[in-house]
Amino acid sequence: MKALLVLAITAATAIPAYAADYAGRWEISGRQFGNVPSFHPITDGRLVISGGGGTYTGTYNALRFSGSEQKDGLHLDCTSDGKPCGTLVLNEAKGKLTGSAIMSGERIDITGQRPAAKPPQATAHEFVPKRFHTNFSGDTPPALRIFPGDSVHTETVDNRGYDGKNVQRSTRGNPLTGPFYVEGAMPGDTLVVHLKRVRLNRDYALQASSIAGNAFNPGYLRNEVKGDGVPNTWKLDATSNLGSLANPGERLRDYKVPLMPMLGCVGVAPPRRQAIASSNLGPWGGNLDSQSVREGTTVYLPVFQPGALLYIGDTHAQQGDGELPGQAMETSMDVTFSVEVIEGKNLGQTWIDTGEEIGVMGVGGSLDESLRVATTGMALWLNDRYGLNQGEIAAVLGTAMRYEIAEVVDPQINIVAKIRKDMLAKIR
Amino acid sequence: MKALLVLAITAATAIPAYAADYAGRWEISGRQFGNVPSFHPITDGRLVISGGGGTYTGTYNALRFSGSEQKDGLHLDCTSDGKPCGTLVLNEAKGKLTGSAIMSGERIDITGQRPAAKPPQATAHEFVPKRFHTNFSGDTPPALRIFPGDSVHTETVDNRGYDGKNVQRSTRGNPLTGPFYVEGAMPGDTLVVHLKRVRLNRDYALQASSIAGNAFNPGYLRNEVKGDGVPNTWKLDATSNLGSLANPGERLRDYKVPLMPMLGCVGVAPPRRQAIASSNLGPWGGNLDSQSVREGTTVYLPVFQPGALLYIGDTHAQQGDGELPGQAMETSMDVTFSVEVIEGKNLGQTWIDTGEEIGVMGVGGSLDESLRVATTGMALWLNDRYGLNQGEIAAVLGTAMRYEIAEVVDPQINIVAKIRKDMLAKIR
Amino acid sequence: MKALLVLAITAATAIPAYAADYAGRWEISGRQFGNVPSFHPITDGRLVISGGGGTYTGTYNALRFSGSEQKDGLHLDCTSDGKPCGTLVLNEAKGKLTGSAIMSGERIDITGQRPAAKPPQATAHEFVPKRFHTNFSGDTPPALRIFPGDSVHTETVDNRGYDGKNVQRSTRGNPLTGPFYVEGAMPGDTLVVHLKRVRLNRDYALQASSIAGNAFNPGYLRNEVKGDGVPNTWKLDATSNLGSLANPGERLRDYKVPLMPMLGCVGVAPPRRQAIASSNLGPWGGNLDSQSVREGTTVYLPVFQPGALLYIGDTHAQQGDGELPGQAMETSMDVTFSVEVIEGKNLGQTWIDTGEEIGVMGVGGSLDESLRVATTGMALWLNDRYGLNQGEIAAVLGTAMRYEIAEVVDPQINIVAKIRKDMLAKIR
Amino acid sequence: MKALLVLAITAATAIPAYAADYAGRWEISGRQFGNVPSFHPITDGRLVISGGGGTYTGTYNALRFSGSEQKDGLHLDCTSDGKPCGTLVLNEAKGKLTGSAIMSGERIDITGQRPAAKPPQATAHEFVPKRFHTNFSGDTPPALRIFPGDSVHTETVDNRGYDGKNVQRSTRGNPLTGPFYVEGAMPGDTLVVHLKRVRLNRDYALQASSIAGNAFNPGYLRNEVKGDGVPNTWKLDATSNLGSLANPGERLRDYKVPLMPMLGCVGVAPPRRQAIASSNLGPWGGNLDSQSVREGTTVYLPVFQPGALLYIGDTHAQQGDGELPGQAMETSMDVTFSVEVIEGKNLGQTWIDTGEEIGVMGVGGSLDESLRVATTGMALWLNDRYGLNQGEIAAVLGTAMRYEIAEVVDPQINIVAKIRKDMLAKIR
Repeated sequence: MKALLVLAITAATAIPAYAADYAGRWEISGRQFGNVPSFHPITDGRLVISGGGGTYTGTYNALRFSGSEQKDGLHLDCTSDGKPCGTLVLNEAKGKLTGSAIMSGERIDITGQRPAAKPPQATAHEFVPKRFHTNFSGDTPPALRIFPGDSVHTETVDNRGYDGKNVQRSTRGNPLTGPFYVEGAMPGDTLVVHLKRVRLNRDYALQASSIAGNAFNPGYLRNEVKGDGVPNTWKLDATSNLGSLANPGERLRDYKVPLMPMLGCVGVAPPRRQAIASSNLGPWGGNLDSQSVREGTTVYLPVFQPGALLYIGDTHAQQGDGELPGQAMETSMDVTFSVEVIEGKNLGQTWIDTGEEIGVMGVGGSLDESLRVATTGMALWLNDRYGLNQGEIAAVLGTAMRYEIAEVVDPQINIVAKIRKDMLAKIR
Repeated sequence: MKALLVLAITAATAIPAYAADYAGRWEISGRQFGNVPSFHPITDGRLVISGGGGTYTGTYNALRFSGSEQKDGLHLDCTSDGKPCGTLVLNEAKGKLTGSAIMSGERIDITGQRPAAKPPQATAHEFVPKRFHTNFSGDTPPALRIFPGDSVHTETVDNRGYDGKNVQRSTRGNPLTGPFYVEGAMPGDTLVVHLKRVRLNRDYALQASSIAGNAFNPGYLRNEVKGDGVPNTWKLDATSNLGSLANPGERLRDYKVPLMPMLGCVGVAPPRRQAIASSNLGPWGGNLDSQSVREGTTVYLPVFQPGALLYIGDTHAQQGDGELPGQAMETSMDVTFSVEVIEGKNLGQTWIDTGEEIGVMGVGGSLDESLRVATTGMALWLNDRYGLNQGEIAAVLGTAMRYEIAEVVDPQINIVAKIRKDMLAKIR
Repeated sequence: MKALLVLAITAATAIPAYAADYAGRWEISGRQFGNVPSFHPITDGRLVISGGGGTYTGTYNALRFSGSEQKDGLHLDCTSDGKPCGTLVLNEAKGKLTGSAIMSGERIDITGQRPAAKPPQATAHEFVPKRFHTNFSGDTPPALRIFPGDSVHTETVDNRGYDGKNVQRSTRGNPLTGPFYVEGAMPGDTLVVHLKRVRLNRDYALQASSIAGNAFNPGYLRNEVKGDGVPNTWKLDATSNLGSLANPGERLRDYKVPLMPMLGCVGVAPPRRQAIASSNLGPWGGNLDSQSVREGTTVYLPVFQPGALLYIGDTHAQQGDGELPGQAMETSMDVTFSVEVIEGKNLGQTWIDTGEEIGVMGVGGSLDESLRVATTGMALWLNDRYGLNQGEIAAVLGTAMRYEIAEVVDPQINIVAKIRKDMLAKIR
Repeated sequence: MKALLVLAITAATAIPAYAADYAGRWEISGRQFGNVPSFHPITDGRLVISGGGGTYTGTYNALRFSGSEQKDGLHLDCTSDGKPCGTLVLNEAKGKLTGSAIMSGERIDITGQRPAAKPPQATAHEFVPKRFHTNFSGDTPPALRIFPGDSVHTETVDNRGYDGKNVQRSTRGNPLTGPFYVEGAMPGDTLVVHLKRVRLNRDYALQASSIAGNAFNPGYLRNEVKGDGVPNTWKLDATSNLGSLANPGERLRDYKVPLMPMLGCVGVAPPRRQAIASSNLGPWGGNLDSQSVREGTTVYLPVFQPGALLYIGDTHAQQGDGELPGQAMETSMDVTFSVEVIEGKNLGQTWIDTGEEIGVMGVGGSLDESLRVATTGMALWLNDRYGLNQGEIAAVLGTAMRYEIAEVVDPQINIVAKIRKDMLAKIR
């Protein structure tokens, strides 16, 4: 392959030269030994080159480059804290970039292309899913490509694959609608998802009729009187916005629950090209099962793969803290969302803005770890956003922290650390 | 001692007999090898004897007895599930009870006395503490003896022992006001504490200026930029009901926090005659550090020792979830409470009724354990109170559970499991 | 049913037709709405059909079928606990099976093929990996197809991708050798891996020079005096079987550690067609990081995908409990293993036999969960293997349990529950 | 200062006064508002005064004083890091010390007395307990006063209070032998307990016949087939050193277990004058339930109260990891121990030396916390004892750490972090 490259360069000098066009935005991919080099400073991402006349600067997430065109292409040297941190060598031809990077003592191959051109007007997509997916995966071909600013009106099926007309359209297991490829979203960015509409589209929901065992003491489990195991069916009344049991016993005949439709699953393709089951959750979002992810909420997700690859699903008519039965009121939903992209910055966790509160999802292997992850996220943000120091963080979190135990029943636990926006508004 | 007992009985038959008066309520104590026999069915408690004419029945918590007067005293046989479960032999003389119990194959000695006579009118006590205590202990002599129905107006000092006039009156370490001996409260009962008044009595509070390390990820701790370690001082404005930093930097100059005075500590003497530090918590209540323990709240505590021995302290002007700095706004307080006793029944945990919510304190060694303890308490109560079965408990907890992460900074963690009372009102 | 049967046979004899050949072993795949139906009784697996002359029985893992050939193919009815549990309808043509299953009220499509024919002699493969993988994935094409009984002599690279000649051959991040497709291994089976040789093939190893923060108290982390962050280099002396620091300070100049080469990673393709990073672990094995996975050990892995897809890697020259620095002595290795398949049964977890001990990997989100998973695995096995009841399990585990805290530094924790084989030998 | 000194001396010589004798060792007590001031630098401890002729220095744990005799007594000023940190004013009369300390801005009262005189010869005490205790408490009067160097030959009863002759001599609940007041042991010291003899004194042991629920997955508990609940009785054969079930079923007829007698409970009076149940454990030792606490082991305990107040009990004939049934082979024992005191230094945790290994007890609310506590203890000690830095600690713990999961069934969990002494011997 190297021989061919040399040949190509030779050819380029022989013929009255193609004027390489480096300046502007590139979506580049790094490859090493056939893999995405997840631990290399450059993998997949956005390279922005400025300049011309042979002298250029470049940015790739937090990296800063500068350099010049040379015989074998554009050389861009990386500098970090005043010290050299590697070199890119790039060749542009007909809108394609090829080259290599040597950083951290390791060489990777690079290819690049121009981002898709954004139409002048945002599009309101109507999307009817043909197939549903049960993994958050970067290897699933996009179901729809959209641009920042676009909105999508679509539907979800319930956790068993049944839709608003009670037709099964997928295998069981939290089938997801998507993935939506968001043009321009690159690793290191934040995908912003505005949930404009999250509404019931049918009149019933199912819910397991026992509590997950890990929410009970061992002694309780050993002595529990078991029921028949038949799921509880809830009637959903969109008019009164109340749910009630379809077949209540005497005691719960009047038990009516205010509905608050929500998305159990919202997430993007995970890092390292993993494919993770839609029952699971992590930095990529996933099966977050938080009541705070509802109509009116904005969700902020870190991007790990080009296009982000957004998935939604596992919609609930309502949910108590902890999602204790392992299921909430599981039903299909009518959903509209729009997307934006914040370039070059993400917080490594899922954040939400419900209008009333700002919150960060603490996902961990135990409640204790989840609380640490959530609190750390909030403290880092208070420092990053407002410049608060240790004592000021203690003053704010010590007085304004609100924890939501979202769920304790999935492979990872989710505690949401939240602060009211009217309290945040008092910080200068 | 046994020889003396025989002698006494001989004497009783020789002289024209004292007519033993067994019927009525007794406060009895069991002793074995010099210890309170904590694992014996009978330790300290209330024995209620009914009948006369030589035939009697008795109750001791859940135990049921029946028997008759015999030559050597009153014999009461215990029956449980139709099977014999032991025998009491009792002798009454001048209002004192002596005797023994053989149950579970082990003999213990018993003494008993009549409960103190309750005055016709409840008393409103004014109590100025002379000494404060830093352990919840059953060996501390009562500071005041009160009756069910009585109220007490008193004060607390802050966690360093400083009172409403900023005078130090105790050693540091959550000094407690009390203990209050509640006449008639016996092990197996529930002590009911109505918090009628929990108000500020000074204009400042102190709070640590860093977050407890166990609320942060290890990586955060390794890189944390430390402050000066000087506690944050809060100005407390009772008129506006707002707290603000006494010496804020630029960023928190406008940061004002609504106050909600609360008791960090409320508890009784622990089981097994233990003396447990006022920093700790458990089934006896203790350093619960829950925002839900505030004016208007009723607290239900299991009784482990005669008189319950109620302590209060560690008052906070306000607290965020988790009590993250390890301290809330620590200040002294003006407190009025009244007490009641529910005889013969307790739930083994601390319960609260805030007016809006019913809740149970889940105290455990980790957040995961605390959540299990709290959820189990709530499920058992839904079954006990409403007769709900497994599926109905799932329906209610799956839709109505609300968790409060009260504190994560004490030797045990406290998560409060709560349900709104308007939801409970829908259960028949 | 009988009438239909006669009809079918008549039809079959009337036309000099292709005689469908149902009997024997089939490797079948279930698909539903384009997905592997992970929650359906039939997904991918081994269907064994017996009989002929129009009447057949079948087995698929624990399912049992019986039925007959009819006009539209072979009908096999499922019975479980005396109750019908669904029907397969299958058509065979030229060694390919097509058809459908209706079970649990859901229809799936089925295709099937004959297993690959096993050669009469086992093969000793020499395998030089061309590419390494950093996910345990079922979507990676097999690097080599082997049969039960075969052995493979191959190599691993270290966690940074460097081999025995210190040449980098992969991206960083626990690159794995494989995957090895084991002919005949089907979901529901156990893959047995005999580690015949796990030996050093170079003279150094690297190890991080600080302990993972989650192994320390918060207070320690806040006050830790940091080093230079340069990894510790260990010299490995295969002759003396000792490791020593390449650049020790005065205090560790004589610190020599006995080596015990081991595999940090051994695992198969995870369930639900997930692709999980080689840093992670679960029921599929993975980054188990247990000192017990060494030369002479046999590893038992549940099979989740046809061919199992075995991966190995992350080899360590030695490791202390917990793998506290997040790395052991990381080095490349010379490895020989052979495989077997136990059909139709697995224990859902990774088991090991070290010669001295039998053990089960307890993988969970916290040490507490891992211990529960491990202990449960061992108790279930004592019941399954020896028929021990509750009291006997208590007698054995209460006296013979040995826990190995394998690692506390990966995304999931691993505690190995072990019992000495000489103790097990005393159980009849 | 000098002038005052002269004055003081003058005064002292002017009146043919009692010549106060300050020099030497004092056992002092601090009191404040009637409490032991647990958060004050001076509470109860050893004050050692040197000098004479009016000029003195003093030490109290890590505090260093210097000063002189003045009119109103001996003034000793504290200096820490070159800054003044408070003042003692003391008066001696007839071997009694009175006075006060002002430190950290708070005044406390002080009394002191001379330590008991140590006899020239160590005593080998024969101690027959008259009463047993079920709390580790500093308020229990000493059963025996011993001196460092003395040994005590005594006995323990089993967890139900039954002795070597199968006579019940105490209430149930881990009754403890002691407390032993060790003359001269003061808060801040380490009590060293050499277990010279831990031997069976009867031929049976009892053990619960089910595993503690917190060691099992919830699903296992929900489906567990229960036994009759009758404890397993083990026959103990001191000759063969084997235990076997008294009434085995067919399967465990040959199941014989090597015995290794051990102390479940060893501990001292807890800090803050708490009284903690003998089921619990903490920095004071307590119900550690570690197999490493056996004949030949030396136990190092922090001293929290004058005399340390040593208790032992809960003896086991043998124990598997985790003490899974909540009980080991519970039996009485014949015990001999001797004591020493290390003055002025303790590590805040229980340490052991088994001859083969050095270990530290990590006591916490969960396995995760216990591991952190244990690892932190070991790392601090490696730094304190050998001066190892971060990278060296990683090298040693990464290669030589061995964890023992002692018990998972008590109110706190115990993980012992251990290193082989032959590995430690390689550290200079």
